[in-house]
Amino acid sequence: MDLISIIIVISGIIALLFAGYLILKIRKESPGSEKMQEISKAIHEGATAFLYSENKILVIFVSAVTIILLAVSFIPNSNMHWGTALAFIIGAILSILSGNIGMRIATLSNARTAEGAKTSINKGLSVAFSSGAVMGICVVGLGVLGVFGMFLFFSEILHYAVNVTTNILFGFGFGASSVALFARVGGGIYTKSADVGADLVGKVEENIPEDDPRNPAVIADLVGDNVGDVAGMGADLYESYVESIIAPMALAAIAGGIALQTYGSNAIILPLTIAAIGIFSSIIGTFFVRTGKKSNVYSAMRNGLFASTILVGIFAGVATWYLLDGNMGPYFAILAGLIAGIVIGLNTEYFASEKQKPVKAIAEAAKTGPATVIIQGLVSGMMSTLIPVLSVVVAMIISYYFAEFYGVAIAAVGMLSVLGISLATDCYGPVADNAAGIAEMSGMGHEVRERAEALDAVGNTTAAMGKGFAIGSAAITALALISSFIVSLTIHYTPEQILDFLSLGSSTSPYLVAGIFIGAMLPFIFIALTMGAVGRAAFSMVEEVRYQFKELKLLTDPDAKPDYKRCVSISTKRALREMIVPGLLAVLSPVIVGVVFGFLGPKGSGIAALGGLLIGSIATGFLLAIFLANAGGAWDNAKKYIEAGNLGGKGSPAHKATVIGDTVGDPCKDTSGPSLNILIKLMSVVTLVFLPIFVMFG
Amino acid sequence: MDLISIIIVISGIIALLFAGYLILKIRKESPGSEKMQEISKAIHEGATAFLYSENKILVIFVSAVTIILLAVSFIPNSNMHWGTALAFIIGAILSILSGNIGMRIATLSNARTAEGAKTSINKGLSVAFSSGAVMGICVVGLGVLGVFGMFLFFSEILHYAVNVTTNILFGFGFGASSVALFARVGGGIYTKSADVGADLVGKVEENIPEDDPRNPAVIADLVGDNVGDVAGMGADLYESYVESIIAPMALAAIAGGIALQTYGSNAIILPLTIAAIGIFSSIIGTFFVRTGKKSNVYSAMRNGLFASTILVGIFAGVATWYLLDGNMGPYFAILAGLIAGIVIGLNTEYFASEKQKPVKAIAEAAKTGPATVIIQGLVSGMMSTLIPVLSVVVAMIISYYFAEFYGVAIAAVGMLSVLGISLATDCYGPVADNAAGIAEMSGMGHEVRERAEALDAVGNTTAAMGKGFAIGSAAITALALISSFIVSLTIHYTPEQILDFLSLGSSTSPYLVAGIFIGAMLPFIFIALTMGAVGRAAFSMVEEVRYQFKELKLLTDPDAKPDYKRCVSISTKRALREMIVPGLLAVLSPVIVGVVFGFLGPKGSGIAALGGLLIGSIATGFLLAIFLANAGGAWDNAKKYIEAGNLGGKGSPAHKATVIGDTVGDPCKDTSGPSLNILIKLMSVVTLVFLPIFVMFG
Repeated sequence: MDLISIIIVISGIIALLFAGYLILKIRKESPGSEKMQEISKAIHEGATAFLYSENKILVIFVSAVTIILLAVSFIPNSNMHWGTALAFIIGAILSILSGNIGMRIATLSNARTAEGAKTSINKGLSVAFSSGAVMGICVVGLGVLGVFGMFLFFSEILHYAVNVTTNILFGFGFGASSVALFARVGGGIYTKSADVGADLVGKVEENIPEDDPRNPAVIADLVGDNVGDVAGMGADLYESYVESIIAPMALAAIAGGIALQTYGSNAIILPLTIAAIGIFSSIIGTFFVRTGKKSNVYSAMRNGLFASTILVGIFAGVATWYLLDGNMGPYFAILAGLIAGIVIGLNTEYFASEKQKPVKAIAEAAKTGPATVIIQGLVSGMMSTLIPVLSVVVAMIISYYFAEFYGVAIAAVGMLSVLGISLATDCYGPVADNAAGIAEMSGMGHEVRERAEALDAVGNTTAAMGKGFAIGSAAITALALISSFIVSLTIHYTPEQILDFLSLGSSTSPYLVAGIFIGAMLPFIFIALTMGAVGRAAFSMVEEVRYQFKELKLLTDPDAKPDYKRCVSISTKRALREMIVPGLLAVLSPVIVGVVFGFLGPKGSGIAALGGLLIGSIATGFLLAIFLANAGGAWDNAKKYIEAGNLGGKGSPAHKATVIGDTVGDPCKDTSGPSLNILIKLMSVVTLVFLPIFVMFG
Repeated sequence: MDLISIIIVISGIIALLFAGYLILKIRKESPGSEKMQEISKAIHEGATAFLYSENKILVIFVSAVTIILLAVSFIPNSNMHWGTALAFIIGAILSILSGNIGMRIATLSNARTAEGAKTSINKGLSVAFSSGAVMGICVVGLGVLGVFGMFLFFSEILHYAVNVTTNILFGFGFGASSVALFARVGGGIYTKSADVGADLVGKVEENIPEDDPRNPAVIADLVGDNVGDVAGMGADLYESYVESIIAPMALAAIAGGIALQTYGSNAIILPLTIAAIGIFSSIIGTFFVRTGKKSNVYSAMRNGLFASTILVGIFAGVATWYLLDGNMGPYFAILAGLIAGIVIGLNTEYFASEKQKPVKAIAEAAKTGPATVIIQGLVSGMMSTLIPVLSVVVAMIISYYFAEFYGVAIAAVGMLSVLGISLATDCYGPVADNAAGIAEMSGMGHEVRERAEALDAVGNTTAAMGKGFAIGSAAITALALISSFIVSLTIHYTPEQILDFLSLGSSTSPYLVAGIFIGAMLPFIFIALTMGAVGRAAFSMVEEVRYQFKELKLLTDPDAKPDYKRCVSISTKRALREMIVPGLLAVLSPVIVGVVFGFLGPKGSGIAALGGLLIGSIATGFLLAIFLANAGGAWDNAKKYIEAGNLGGKGSPAHKATVIGDTVGDPCKDTSGPSLNILIKLMSVVTLVFLPIFVMFG
């Protein structure tokens, strides 16, 4: 192995070792009183049970797709390799693993964070952040090792040509992607049906506080934080991460491609090298967070992120210079991606921050009731799309200017290189949220509860930034995959044909436009399906909670015990049932569009429709994801702003109006919005994997 | 003049004569009691004052643009003709006229409709529908006469070549379009700020009924129906109508274009011929409405629309056969457009009908409060995009299959040919709404009020269908304009260059993608601006109404008189101030994108970005317009469904929840949604008018 390969492997191993070290450190912390351990155990069991049931469904799905992939690979001239099926399975397994590790460590840390908060806010922060860091570092470690492992296996052991190998890697991305979709959608439906169900009956109808142990849905709600915000987010970003690495690799490996001619074969290994640099930088960045003083825990986290960003900015330059013989074009693309990621994150933070105008405007609107709260939230959510879109557009144009399609693809690597630490700050949130719940349920007293809530509040801001980052990276990863799609066409068609198929000015133009229209529509349908699913699942939960309150006399009989497990089981069953249709929609849409339009129109119509489908879905998927995340975050924080004592404080009519806004925002920001990230990437990678089939249909 | 020209001119003249006959008929009806006349007069004065102030601003805007167009036409090699400036002015004037006529006749008919309802529902219907018919028939008459007049002026009197003449006609479209934008946005802000302001203080805070004469904003609210729903809608559809006619004319006139070669020069006159057939069919269709029995007023209107559609379907075939020597390709495109329009209308009706699942589901959701009402409305609004998108896609592909880009352009003519009657059923609604208000305010008693409300309820369904039709026709007209844009490029570039510029696979690809992203974003920003404007304007109104209630003791002192004029003046001022920014955004966006990207990138980047901008904005503009219209309509009717006595009826918690939904839906369906129709057409026509300039920048 050469030096670079060794560095890449070491980065992955160090990531896993560092995560192991953090786990040991967390384990050493006191898990708190017996009561706390009991609650934590119930959460852990609920989460594990959900993931177990989910995985059973995933096994069926993964097996079915594997059989299809293998079957296709045996069709003569299908151009699909059996390795794609193998890579698909590995990708799916590693994605499941990422989500599971994150969930396990989060349920390990929640009670310990609450117990830590007994000592000081900073102690609680340290435990919660370590838990997030395990997740972040594991995801990047497994990402680099997974992609590089598959690459070595096919190219070094089986001696396949690099372009065949990198093409097989899309199977890996497909595996990661499809698992991520189910994890995101299922987890998102789970968490919000439990949350809405618990709140509507407990807080609104019965007037008992959040996380009150008498509420039978409270454990399901806490489980939801783990399966949705942790496991779902982990799988989502694992997918973005590996696909952003695979796309430029595949692009660079295409024989006769411009990237290979300009930069040489090292361009294939550059993305993994940048990822390795990102891992080291992220680990170093976590130490910056540790030095944070009590007074500014949040800016400590931000410092950690900025430190990592600067380190990547420097060493990515060195690596590019070394690997590409001083040809620095792709480096500028990496920088563009890196900066765009930060800008999108800051934009999200601005729109979700209680200190800024948008959230305050929503709180002000609460004076005239819930309707104006909703309208104002829609307004600021829509307005918040401006900066992210311009950032992505500028990053894309700069990247293309410096390194054509390879530049666009590697810009995504730049953006995602700091994932290790940005995911850490993001996954910190649900752990703090759980800790606050455990503090309330186990009766740890006012002070601990307040500290835990302070940690949770910081978590909301970091989560907002994390969400912005997840959306931005999904969009730029999807653009990277589209770039691969366009360049991959050179394997099957002449340059003139490609130009013709994908042009608004040619005879396939109506198919391109049809693809754009259908692609632009799919995110709307996807939102309708997932949001409707939350509504239906929450309705079942409301009925169950109402029934238990009444039949078990939970609020009147002090000896009554709520049946948490029934609520957990309702969330589990409904989430799993409701995730099937949106999941299949995402996987099947490109297949149907590619085959039907290819069959209907003149030669190239299917390709045109697919190109349109992808770009249309990315455009509106990106916009709607930002809109939903920022509107949802702003509604949430407008409520918190009033709860902090402004405009009449808790219990005032203005507060009630913002509670309604928050309830509307919940499925927006935690179910439908995040699911769109996967939709746009999954459709792109499905298109890439099945491209050989689409080519056969014209 | 040849036979066809004579038929076209006669159709326009007959339309105006028929409208005149209807006006005389309406005038003959009794205007009701003195009190009713007084209210009607106040509404008329408010509406006239608003349109007068609006027109003053429009004169400034039109003059400025005219000067710019003239200045550009004097730049050597700019390829812009001075006639464009003249056509622009005429287009603007005719558009203003369309809106004004509609508004005048609507304010003439409102009291007469209420008075008619004293006799019977059917009598009231007859007056209100006649008023709508005047508007519909005037719009198509002025449309055909305007376009054909300009065409004759330049080609017959000044003897310009037809391709120069038709190109000048885009100036006419631009004039109609820019006036329509201000009318739609200004009228939309006016109507909803008054409505929301009146409801929030009157119905919610003070618990007085809708249209209570003690509410100082009630006249402003009634004025709003006229300036928004009538004048705005009229200008909007006048624009769609003339642009749908101009686009295929221009396309057919391009020297060396495929349409000219295949179908000969008669293809230029075919769109106007179809429009003339549509006028005759619409007039005949109105007689079908008259025969409607009392029991099924609504299906009578639908019968009228279907009758006109069938007539156009038959005679368009005859005309195509006659003009194109038996070459029936374009006829199938016309049929595809016609059918797509009907399907989109029916889809909107389904999603807004109280008898169907979507509205009932929202009403059911009201049982768990306003948050679930909002969520369910978002779900059904998003789901409602499916059928319209597929309809447009199928119509586009069929049209292109049969007659290439000319087919896509003439499909829009097919869809809009029945505008005369579909606009009649649509503009009937606001008149019925006004009549119900006048009945309430003048104390005409329970029975008349109920009848007027029954008329209003039918108006809501027809308005929903009309809105669907307006959106669908805007999308297909915009596609027609894009087709013209693509074909117009042949004047400046070689076919290879056009293919290259507009391809995802070429070096201008990032600019095309950037254009798509920015285009897809603009409707979001546009919604944020217009919805925010309603919020701000409504807030001023709320303050004024609260102030008057308190200071003038309106609810306690029986002699107190509300100051309606102050409310009218607030709506007027705020609407006019708030319409400027969104208006300029729409006009300037294509200019900025075309020039900046053209300047920045390689040759063709500006063209690529413009192509992307247009297609991106049409895709999301279309989707968001359907979403907003249908979510808004469904919220409105869910409230009405409960008010009809279901789920607890008026005053129940479920009713209160749906009132909140309705308030959120108001700016969605009556301000932001409809404005998007103009945005997408206006950006396309601006691109076409300034194409010579963009070409100069590369």
